Amino acid sequence: MTVHGEAAINRQWLLRGRPVGALTLDDFALEPSPLRAPGDGEAVIKVHYLALDPAIRGFMNDSGSYAAPIEPGQPVRGMVLGEVVESRAPTLAQGDVVSGFGSWSDYVVAPGGQWRRAVGSAPNPDLLHRRGSIGLTAYYGLTRIAGIRPGDRVLVSGAAGAVGSLAGQMARLLGAGQIVGIAGGQEKCGRAVARYGYDECVDYKATADLEGAIRQAMPDGIDVYFDNVGGDMLAAAINLLRKNGRIALCGMISGYDKAVDATRPPNLWNLIVQTAGMRGFRVTDMLDDHAFVTDALAEIDGWIADGRLRGDLDIRQGLENAPAAFLSLFSGGNAGRLLVHVDEDGW
Amino acid sequence: MTVHGEAAINRQWLLRGRPVGALTLDDFALEPSPLRAPGDGEAVIKVHYLALDPAIRGFMNDSGSYAAPIEPGQPVRGMVLGEVVESRAPTLAQGDVVSGFGSWSDYVVAPGGQWRRAVGSAPNPDLLHRRGSIGLTAYYGLTRIAGIRPGDRVLVSGAAGAVGSLAGQMARLLGAGQIVGIAGGQEKCGRAVARYGYDECVDYKATADLEGAIRQAMPDGIDVYFDNVGGDMLAAAINLLRKNGRIALCGMISGYDKAVDATRPPNLWNLIVQTAGMRGFRVTDMLDDHAFVTDALAEIDGWIADGRLRGDLDIRQGLENAPAAFLSLFSGGNAGRLLVHVDEDGW
Repeated sequence: MTVHGEAAINRQWLLRGRPVGALTLDDFALEPSPLRAPGDGEAVIKVHYLALDPAIRGFMNDSGSYAAPIEPGQPVRGMVLGEVVESRAPTLAQGDVVSGFGSWSDYVVAPGGQWRRAVGSAPNPDLLHRRGSIGLTAYYGLTRIAGIRPGDRVLVSGAAGAVGSLAGQMARLLGAGQIVGIAGGQEKCGRAVARYGYDECVDYKATADLEGAIRQAMPDGIDVYFDNVGGDMLAAAINLLRKNGRIALCGMISGYDKAVDATRPPNLWNLIVQTAGMRGFRVTDMLDDHAFVTDALAEIDGWIADGRLRGDLDIRQGLENAPAAFLSLFSGGNAGRLLVHVDEDGW
Repeated sequence: MTVHGEAAINRQWLLRGRPVGALTLDDFALEPSPLRAPGDGEAVIKVHYLALDPAIRGFMNDSGSYAAPIEPGQPVRGMVLGEVVESRAPTLAQGDVVSGFGSWSDYVVAPGGQWRRAVGSAPNPDLLHRRGSIGLTAYYGLTRIAGIRPGDRVLVSGAAGAVGSLAGQMARLLGAGQIVGIAGGQEKCGRAVARYGYDECVDYKATADLEGAIRQAMPDGIDVYFDNVGGDMLAAAINLLRKNGRIALCGMISGYDKAVDATRPPNLWNLIVQTAGMRGFRVTDMLDDHAFVTDALAEIDGWIADGRLRGDLDIRQGLENAPAAFLSLFSGGNAGRLLVHVDEDGW
């Protein structure tokens, strides 16, 4: 099957300029262009789902992120799930379901090496959630970075978000003694408790004293803080650490969308007082560790099969709606892992 | 031998009030009092040397340190080296050389369990430096906390101080590839390079752009930062971390003596970018780990015997001069590990 050529039009979302502060729809432009033919070693992927990760906002800055910046005029990049429709790569065959770092577009032409095959999997958007990088991120952060132990008192920010919803449930499955979430608004907090197994959830929008509210929920302090937010939440958690506490720094969404630096918590001295540690991590470092990925996915698949790990997807329809969906991430407008289903007629 | 009773006068330095900001001599009072008899399980220690650790300043605050606050009117506490002159403790005999948490005084009466016997050691003040908690702190921080590896690019703040002078030398002995120090003033920087084996030393008092100065010395960035200072130095080091960098938080002297919080570095986001970690530690957690202490002291003693680990002591004479000596720590007026020799007639 050949999809490229003049007849095949590929729509791509481009970054218009270098955004400063909060994004708007004007920062994006949808441009159609002919699909180029794959070179030797490349494959053509039909994109079915886009994963709207907050970290993409960081890639739009000119520096300071962990991926190369998206230059103005270039396609917006992010994780996608798709299907190989043409392959000149030895490792990929037509029909393979793959995930990887692509762009917000109908098709991606890219080297075969950058795609991970979902061996034996149905083409399921959960490959971008529980059974993909999000599930692995929560698992990696809890097990390897935070070194979670039975009985640990665990706090998770972004508790109703993609990673946080899984991290709370996994903390329970891994034996944590207390699991408290932080989320914004009654709906999210309610969902964190009702669906993701949190013992309690602190609504940061409903309190002027975040640290006091967390202390009330966790009077004995925090053994593990799984941080997706940074800023004030990180500062509060540092102050409430128990001896030998561990902070897994997964993200700092409070700072991604601001022109000012919101990643400046005070009182790092308390890391010494509590002989506590914090470590940043990215699951992408582990994706080539076959043993880790295999073991983690086996455990995750077991939990899914037993009905013990909920994975809520918030799927928006149509590539044309990707920027609006992405913006909703920063106003807290998503309910679960936020994906874009590129083409309603595809799987 | 009995030293207590009305005839035996014990001089003790008391904390007068709760100091705020920079200490002055008026914060201390030298009070003589009769020496009480030891109770069952207690011993009387004749104090020969006081170790003037910056952390003692933290104990003088009403909260926020890792030891109980020193209350106004109570003796100033800190590590001391002494000799058992009377024992009702089963583990201690008269004549034993011991170190432990005591007070700034001629004698200490305390439970036997809080003293560590220097088995087979001469009564040497180096037991409060290379062969004691300072040597173990540098060793523990580099090996267990920072996980130093051959070739690592290592930065140490307080490079001419007690811990820093040993950490730089040990980093070399443990195979580091580059060792850069930070210290205040030409004298200290010169000593760091000439005596403690630093490749280079950044004089923070001579630059308005600390981060730029460190970057110039370490253009490839930092694998390990051993931090004794906190504040701006920690902030600069975080910004210059290499992938998988590790920060061992040993102390934050920049904040101890100030009413304002100097422990507020920006850009923790970079811990995520570089998947880097920082962890606070205290060697006191390890002193009951017999295998660790034995192995570490064996390695340290080997280095000392080979003449490869210099230990500079700055010994001030007389208990009556302890507060003035302590104040000099915060103005950078010491040259090496700062001790007070309590009694010129003793060892």
